[in-house]
Amino acid sequence: MSESTKVEVLAVGTELLLGQIVDTNSTWLSQRLSEVGLTCYFQGKVGDNLDRIVLAMRSALARSDVLIVCGGLGPTQDDITREAISVVANQPLISDRDLERLIQEKFTSKGREMPSNNLRQAQVPRGSQIISPDLGTAPGLIVPIGNKRIYALPGVPVEMKDMVDRCVIDDILLRVQDRSTISSRTLRIWGVSESRLSELIAPVFEELDQHPGNVTLAFLASGIDGIRIRITARVSSDQEADSVLSAYESSLREILGNLVYGVDNFGMEDALLDLLSKGNETLAIAESITAGLVASRLGRTPGISRVLKGALVAYNNQAKFDLLKVTNGLVISHECALEMAMGVRELFGSTIGLALTGVAGPDLQEEQPPGTVFVACAIGDHKPKSRKLMLPGNRISVQELAAISAMDFLRNSLIS
Amino acid sequence: MSESTKVEVLAVGTELLLGQIVDTNSTWLSQRLSEVGLTCYFQGKVGDNLDRIVLAMRSALARSDVLIVCGGLGPTQDDITREAISVVANQPLISDRDLERLIQEKFTSKGREMPSNNLRQAQVPRGSQIISPDLGTAPGLIVPIGNKRIYALPGVPVEMKDMVDRCVIDDILLRVQDRSTISSRTLRIWGVSESRLSELIAPVFEELDQHPGNVTLAFLASGIDGIRIRITARVSSDQEADSVLSAYESSLREILGNLVYGVDNFGMEDALLDLLSKGNETLAIAESITAGLVASRLGRTPGISRVLKGALVAYNNQAKFDLLKVTNGLVISHECALEMAMGVRELFGSTIGLALTGVAGPDLQEEQPPGTVFVACAIGDHKPKSRKLMLPGNRISVQELAAISAMDFLRNSLIS
Repeated sequence: MSESTKVEVLAVGTELLLGQIVDTNSTWLSQRLSEVGLTCYFQGKVGDNLDRIVLAMRSALARSDVLIVCGGLGPTQDDITREAISVVANQPLISDRDLERLIQEKFTSKGREMPSNNLRQAQVPRGSQIISPDLGTAPGLIVPIGNKRIYALPGVPVEMKDMVDRCVIDDILLRVQDRSTISSRTLRIWGVSESRLSELIAPVFEELDQHPGNVTLAFLASGIDGIRIRITARVSSDQEADSVLSAYESSLREILGNLVYGVDNFGMEDALLDLLSKGNETLAIAESITAGLVASRLGRTPGISRVLKGALVAYNNQAKFDLLKVTNGLVISHECALEMAMGVRELFGSTIGLALTGVAGPDLQEEQPPGTVFVACAIGDHKPKSRKLMLPGNRISVQELAAISAMDFLRNSLIS
Repeated sequence: MSESTKVEVLAVGTELLLGQIVDTNSTWLSQRLSEVGLTCYFQGKVGDNLDRIVLAMRSALARSDVLIVCGGLGPTQDDITREAISVVANQPLISDRDLERLIQEKFTSKGREMPSNNLRQAQVPRGSQIISPDLGTAPGLIVPIGNKRIYALPGVPVEMKDMVDRCVIDDILLRVQDRSTISSRTLRIWGVSESRLSELIAPVFEELDQHPGNVTLAFLASGIDGIRIRITARVSSDQEADSVLSAYESSLREILGNLVYGVDNFGMEDALLDLLSKGNETLAIAESITAGLVASRLGRTPGISRVLKGALVAYNNQAKFDLLKVTNGLVISHECALEMAMGVRELFGSTIGLALTGVAGPDLQEEQPPGTVFVACAIGDHKPKSRKLMLPGNRISVQELAAISAMDFLRNSLIS
């Protein structure tokens, strides 16, 4: 295998193709492979059918050097990954006595009788290496196919991950002579459309085009988390990666400024926690249209209790008038949002009040269409301010967009 | 296309192969396809690379009759699904004037200027049909390739789903001559472990084993939505399906009783809305550990404003004492939960108060470990009641399990 070792992942299981479970194994494997600099160009899913598994394995081995197969190693009749590998490798299945004993012991040590089915798991294609099943009963397999290899792993995530980290990654890397590191960094952005963003950073793309090399940029639209720009560098050391990624991050930040709210796993909630903590501020939130979504998103963040005093979900208008001292009148308005922000700040005795009111739909309210949202914040002695938003989508997407827009409105107010 | 029309799904995006996002689109598509009786034998993922997308499309069309491609239809340089289809279909990309106007209008109607990039989205392979982008700016495509077809859809889930339900499924079925109906019904269950549930319904499974035929049962563990039992029937008419599914639903309900909280898309929120409406009750919620999650989950349901007066997120203890009149003392306790339920009912003037307090983690609180949760409800003249729960997992899963457990606690209190 060369430095461009290509790894492919195949998930086996009819339940995947019926949509009964989400294939998170492949996603996790992708992350691990890219962390160690291995390339994955294709991934597939196939059901529990011998011919189709064999076909999928052969296609994969035609394109790639290494195939990692997840699933189909259990004890029941529909677990046929072993049989499929036996066909692809053109090697008969033989019983491995050591493995039989090992599986038997797993049951006796727990005082349980072993169903005879489980002996199927000791059948392996001749010439295979075995990965011992430390966490379950399904052994993994390493099967050479010419100068390529199949790694067969159980579909149970915890067992699969254990084998990958204990054995598979090292075994693949052992065979890679010379490899580069792939590192990436993701900037998280809110407050600009994908196409506008694309125009803004066109110069950076153009420069990349003129000097094609080891860095790529990609846009990832991620719904209520805004847009992400991923910078990926393929270089020879972690140190070099860090310096290349930092240089691109700086160029992008110079163009984008405060549109960047976070990097990698640092989300909007973390950005607010950070800003509020630094300013010794405390927050209270008045929510109508979002019914507690902003507070609950902040509540997911450990440490938020230092800055979040609480929230009032004034879903019913009477609660706005009685508890937030909103003037009786139209509630889908700048005025109502501003009064809610000031009212909730007083109610909880916080230094900052943030408020949202609007129409989630499906019906009009006060003659305003779904998607009409007013956000407001009241910070210390500053004049409270508000903004009107027109948000797209159905009830749930309006609520989610309203929540992150309000958080971003507060973030920008705290920065400026 | 025949009754055995084979549909394949290909997800496009380097971010999928780097493990940065989980491919939930394919899972959702699998569900929809199997619901209408269409077969999906293979699924794949490929990165934003023209040659590899073309290769993956060609492999898919060699095996299957219909290929649904998700992603790569955006306005930016790395969105190249249109180009790949143009190669596979051997048809040049041409600008569609109507589509240009439509995309232009999407911007002008919102008073925004259209970045010129977006015109790329009006480039379509000659001979394509267009699926109008009702929820976004990326049009979908229907491209005939001989007697097979490619459906190209945006990767943004809400836009993709809209096009599938509005157009793609019908378009595929129109071409299928003769098919049996696969219908399924899913019972949603809370309040019992998977293994206990499995024991309870063993008799129904045994009966199925003795009379194997066109009905299957499956367990689907679905985290914070509890456990689902899916009944699937493959029969010749919708009417027959309905009668078979109803018979099995009755058998299961007879065993499970109130453990069943909903069917199909009828969720815990809908169950509560239903019970509260029927009883002419109004609800107010006091949340500490969940920081608004219960209220926001209820807020997703249209019509909830009839019964939900509001919620108080008393994240800070002072808010519990000042606003909910909780007696100063330990807040991780039955007593505090009960006082919160009564306090929030009084604050909002509702007929019912529901409350949650507990430890989300990662740290201990009042010497109690993360996962310790107290829920309480106060209904009309009944004696308020509370329950202690010990929930597993990290901060976020504790919050989510606490939210649905509290809703189920209220549901059971309203039924009994």
